Amino acid sequence: WQILEHDGIMQLQRSFTFRDFAQALSFTNRVGELAESQGHHPALTTEWGKTTVTWWTHKIRGLHRNDFIMAARTDEVAHS
Amino acid sequence: WQILEHDGIMQLQRSFTFRDFAQALSFTNRVGELAESQGHHPALTTEWGKTTVTWWTHKIRGLHRNDFIMAARTDEVAHS
Repeated sequence: WQILEHDGIMQLQRSFTFRDFAQALSFTNRVGELAESQGHHPALTTEWGKTTVTWWTHKIRGLHRNDFIMAARTDEVAHS
Repeated sequence: WQILEHDGIMQLQRSFTFRDFAQALSFTNRVGELAESQGHHPALTTEWGKTTVTWWTHKIRGLHRNDFIMAARTDEVAHS
Protein backbone atom coordinates (compact mmCIF):
# COMPACT_ATOMS: atom_id res chain seq x y z
CA TRP A 1 0.00 0.00 0.00
CA GLN A 2 1.15 3.49 -0.81
CA ILE A 3 0.18 6.60 1.07
CA LEU A 4 -0.69 9.31 -1.43
CA GLU A 5 -1.89 12.86 -1.16
CA HIS A 6 -4.64 13.74 -3.62
CA ASP A 7 -6.23 17.20 -3.53
CA GLY A 8 -4.82 17.66 -0.03
CA ILE A 9 -6.34 14.37 1.20
CA MET A 10 -4.10 11.56 2.45
CA GLN A 11 -5.14 8.22 0.97
CA LEU A 12 -4.05 4.57 1.03
CA GLN A 13 -3.79 3.04 -2.43
CA ARG A 14 -2.85 -0.34 -3.86
CA SER A 15 -3.26 -1.93 -7.30
CA PHE A 16 -4.04 -5.62 -7.72
CA THR A 17 -3.36 -7.34 -11.05
CA PHE A 18 -5.51 -10.02 -12.69
CA ARG A 19 -5.47 -12.05 -15.87
CA ASP A 20 -8.35 -10.20 -17.54
CA PHE A 21 -11.17 -7.70 -17.10
CA ALA A 22 -13.65 -10.20 -15.65
CA GLN A 23 -11.25 -11.21 -12.85
CA ALA A 24 -10.58 -7.56 -12.00
CA LEU A 25 -14.32 -6.83 -11.90
CA SER A 26 -14.92 -9.90 -9.72
CA PHE A 27 -12.37 -8.56 -7.21
CA THR A 28 -14.01 -5.13 -7.33
CA ASN A 29 -17.32 -6.77 -6.42
CA ARG A 30 -15.77 -8.71 -3.55
CA VAL A 31 -14.17 -5.56 -2.13
CA GLY A 32 -17.53 -3.85 -2.66
CA GLU A 33 -19.20 -6.52 -0.49
CA LEU A 34 -16.59 -5.95 2.20
CA ALA A 35 -17.21 -2.20 1.99
CA GLU A 36 -20.98 -2.63 2.31
CA SER A 37 -20.58 -4.98 5.26
CA GLN A 38 -18.40 -2.44 7.08
CA GLY A 39 -20.23 0.70 6.00
CA HIS A 40 -16.96 2.21 4.74
CA HIS A 41 -16.41 2.65 1.03
CA PRO A 42 -13.25 3.00 -1.07
CA ALA A 43 -12.76 4.19 -4.61
CA LEU A 44 -12.35 1.14 -6.85
CA THR A 45 -10.89 1.63 -10.31
CA THR A 46 -11.49 -1.42 -12.49
CA GLU A 47 -9.52 -1.79 -15.73
CA TRP A 48 -8.50 -4.69 -17.95
CA GLY A 49 -6.37 -6.88 -15.64
CA LYS A 50 -6.16 -4.40 -12.78
CA THR A 51 -8.18 -3.02 -9.88
CA THR A 52 -6.87 -0.06 -7.89
CA VAL A 53 -8.30 0.34 -4.38
CA THR A 54 -8.13 3.69 -2.56
CA TRP A 55 -9.16 4.08 1.06
CA TRP A 56 -9.63 7.31 3.00
CA THR A 57 -12.13 8.76 5.44
CA HIS A 58 -14.30 11.42 3.83
CA LYS A 59 -15.41 12.97 7.12
CA ILE A 60 -11.86 13.82 8.22
CA ARG A 61 -10.53 14.27 4.66
CA GLY A 62 -7.67 11.93 5.47
CA LEU A 63 -6.64 8.64 7.00
CA HIS A 64 -8.19 7.08 10.09
CA ARG A 65 -7.10 3.87 11.80
CA ASN A 66 -10.09 2.19 10.15
CA ASP A 67 -8.62 2.80 6.67
CA PHE A 68 -5.57 0.75 7.56
CA ILE A 69 -7.83 -2.04 8.86
CA MET A 70 -9.82 -1.94 5.60
CA ALA A 71 -6.57 -2.10 3.60
CA ALA A 72 -5.57 -5.24 5.50
CA ARG A 73 -9.02 -6.73 4.90
CA THR A 74 -8.73 -5.91 1.20
CA ASP A 75 -5.51 -7.95 1.11
CA GLU A 76 -7.40 -10.84 2.74
CA VAL A 77 -10.04 -10.62 -0.01
CA ALA A 78 -7.26 -10.70 -2.62
CA HIS A 79 -5.74 -13.83 -1.06
CA SER A 80 -9.01 -15.69 -0.48
CA TRP B 1 -18.55 13.52 -21.78
CA GLN B 2 -15.34 15.41 -21.37
CA ILE B 3 -12.24 14.92 -23.44
CA LEU B 4 -9.24 14.82 -21.13
CA GLU B 5 -5.54 14.33 -21.64
CA HIS B 6 -3.94 12.03 -19.07
CA ASP B 7 -0.23 11.17 -19.37
CA GLY B 8 -0.35 12.32 -22.98
CA ILE B 9 -3.32 10.08 -23.80
CA MET B 10 -6.61 11.59 -24.93
CA GLN B 11 -9.57 10.05 -23.11
CA LEU B 12 -13.36 10.38 -22.93
CA GLN B 13 -14.66 10.63 -19.38
CA ARG B 14 -18.04 11.01 -17.71
CA SER B 15 -19.26 10.61 -14.13
CA PHE B 16 -22.69 9.15 -13.33
CA THR B 17 -24.26 9.76 -9.94
CA PHE B 18 -26.33 7.30 -7.91
CA ARG B 19 -28.07 7.22 -4.56
CA ASP B 20 -25.56 4.92 -2.86
CA PHE B 21 -22.58 2.62 -3.32
CA ALA B 22 -24.62 -0.42 -4.36
CA GLN B 23 -26.29 1.47 -7.23
CA ALA B 24 -22.93 2.77 -8.44
CA LEU B 25 -21.46 -0.74 -8.35
CA SER B 26 -24.48 -2.13 -10.18
CA PHE B 27 -23.90 0.39 -12.99
CA THR B 28 -20.19 -0.52 -13.05
CA ASN B 29 -21.18 -4.15 -13.59
CA ARG B 30 -23.60 -3.26 -16.36
CA VAL B 31 -20.95 -1.21 -18.17
CA GLY B 32 -18.57 -4.13 -17.54
CA GLU B 33 -20.99 -6.46 -19.35
CA LEU B 34 -21.16 -4.02 -22.26
CA ALA B 35 -17.35 -3.89 -22.33
CA GLU B 36 -17.02 -7.67 -22.34
CA SER B 37 -19.62 -8.01 -25.09
CA GLN B 38 -17.72 -5.55 -27.28
CA GLY B 39 -14.19 -6.62 -26.36
CA HIS B 40 -13.30 -3.02 -25.48
CA HIS B 41 -12.71 -2.06 -21.86
CA PRO B 42 -12.85 1.28 -20.05
CA ALA B 43 -11.54 2.30 -16.67
CA LEU B 44 -14.46 2.31 -14.20
CA THR B 45 -14.01 4.12 -10.92
CA THR B 46 -16.71 3.15 -8.43
CA GLU B 47 -17.25 5.28 -5.32
CA TRP B 48 -20.13 5.89 -2.93
CA GLY B 49 -22.85 7.33 -5.19
CA LYS B 50 -20.69 7.78 -8.27
CA THR B 51 -19.14 5.83 -11.13
CA THR B 52 -16.66 7.51 -13.45
CA VAL B 53 -16.23 5.88 -16.87
CA THR B 54 -13.14 6.55 -18.98
CA TRP B 55 -12.80 5.30 -22.55
CA TRP B 56 -9.70 5.31 -24.72
CA THR B 57 -7.95 2.94 -27.10
CA HIS B 58 -4.79 1.49 -25.58
CA LYS B 59 -3.30 0.43 -28.89
CA ILE B 60 -3.27 3.94 -30.34
CA ARG B 61 -2.84 5.66 -26.94
CA GLY B 62 -5.76 7.92 -27.74
CA LEU B 63 -9.29 8.14 -29.04
CA HIS B 64 -10.72 6.05 -31.84
CA ARG B 65 -14.21 6.32 -33.34
CA ASN B 66 -15.12 3.21 -31.32
CA ASP B 67 -14.56 5.07 -28.04
CA PHE B 68 -17.26 7.57 -28.97
CA ILE B 69 -19.60 4.70 -29.86
CA MET B 70 -18.86 3.07 -26.48
CA ALA B 71 -19.53 6.38 -24.71
CA ALA B 72 -22.95 6.58 -26.39
CA ARG B 73 -23.66 2.96 -25.42
CA THR B 74 -22.64 3.74 -21.84
CA ASP B 75 -25.29 6.48 -21.81
CA GLU B 76 -27.83 3.93 -23.03
CA VAL B 77 -26.89 1.63 -20.13
CA ALA B 78 -27.35 4.55 -17.73
CA HIS B 79 -30.81 5.30 -19.10
CA SER B 80 -31.99 1.68 -19.29
